[in-house]
Amino acid sequence: MKQFEGWTIGFDADDTLWHNERFFQLTQARFADLLRDHADADHLSDRLLAAERRNLGHYGYGIKGFVLSMIETAIEVTEERVPASVISELIAAGQEMLAHPIELLPGVEETIVSLKGSAGLILVTKGDLLDQERKLAQSGLGDHFDRVEIVSEKTAPTYARIFQGRDRAVMVGNSLRSDIIPAIEAGAHGIHIPHDLTWEMEKADAPSGHPRFHRIETMTALPELLDKIA
Amino acid sequence: MKQFEGWTIGFDADDTLWHNERFFQLTQARFADLLRDHADADHLSDRLLAAERRNLGHYGYGIKGFVLSMIETAIEVTEERVPASVISELIAAGQEMLAHPIELLPGVEETIVSLKGSAGLILVTKGDLLDQERKLAQSGLGDHFDRVEIVSEKTAPTYARIFQGRDRAVMVGNSLRSDIIPAIEAGAHGIHIPHDLTWEMEKADAPSGHPRFHRIETMTALPELLDKIA
Repeated sequence: MKQFEGWTIGFDADDTLWHNERFFQLTQARFADLLRDHADADHLSDRLLAAERRNLGHYGYGIKGFVLSMIETAIEVTEERVPASVISELIAAGQEMLAHPIELLPGVEETIVSLKGSAGLILVTKGDLLDQERKLAQSGLGDHFDRVEIVSEKTAPTYARIFQGRDRAVMVGNSLRSDIIPAIEAGAHGIHIPHDLTWEMEKADAPSGHPRFHRIETMTALPELLDKIA
Repeated sequence: MKQFEGWTIGFDADDTLWHNERFFQLTQARFADLLRDHADADHLSDRLLAAERRNLGHYGYGIKGFVLSMIETAIEVTEERVPASVISELIAAGQEMLAHPIELLPGVEETIVSLKGSAGLILVTKGDLLDQERKLAQSGLGDHFDRVEIVSEKTAPTYARIFQGRDRAVMVGNSLRSDIIPAIEAGAHGIHIPHDLTWEMEKADAPSGHPRFHRIETMTALPELLDKIA
């Protein structure tokens, strides 16, 4: 494989390098189960999503804000009748999420290792600072990255700062809204690797036809695509 | 004032540049008031501190974790009898904290402005990523810093990384445990500016007599002390 000298490759973490959304969805199923006498699952998930949207400016991304939004929603849908024991279970569910083991997605480790040294590798992730650090540490991938950027929001200016206006930059991720569209807007290539589970708030239309938009099915296809791009 | 060429000055943010702990204490007073039928204030604050300690490894620092620990404590001390309306008030109190206005401490702005350009200025703070960014933006001080480091924990290795082993580095802050002791351990000078209100978990014995330990009463005394150190 050739060297990608002068190229910078940004990697999203959650659901690009390792499983993440599944833990949110499992917790949300437990949440629906705990409140099944008060609201049907669909309605409840709409209310929770509305709370998450409303609170995003306060809490940012991550598990702690998710738990606070679940508690708020539980109080709301029960008109303050939710028992404290249910709230206790939501807090416990959040703590379990904050301790869940890291499971890498297929082909991630070998691809990252194979690219190491041939291009600058940057991890770009959003969420709770401590939790993202914990996951990176547990992933065993920490040493492979030249830089780690834990940011509060992934916008075009975020990528412009991280890639320092370089045009030889690519961003790899599963979220069109956070990883691909703003990176392309900042002048980088966006390489979309779709994940089965995508959070409602990360959905967006693909910039199909854009010359710097690419899609691959798994991480293992990345080196070949980079060869073409470079 | 002379130039501090080659010197790096790190500044803590909360209760060094602006008021912070007072908002935690006000919320804690409200918490005690809401639960006054279930526990006396002293006992309650012990239980809350125990929860915060227990949860620190999961939640890290910041308001979101504080609110989750208050909710957990409320459930605990009432043996699950706390009404949902009280929990709702705790969530609202947290959201107010996350929106509280920034009030700079005396002399901060003029001191930072006077040092700008004469030394490298780095803001070093811990807490919720988004909240720390919001406070910095609202403070109006953002442009004066050459670098901003929002970290999950302030340890000697944190400072060694931030100051890159430079011996011409000083760290200025109100917390002996987080700002002063680990910075000195990393080879920097530690300049302690005590604040009236200090969170129990930030307390530590001063490294009195250490040649790189200094104490001043207000930020305005900083340039003169730097003159002496340099």
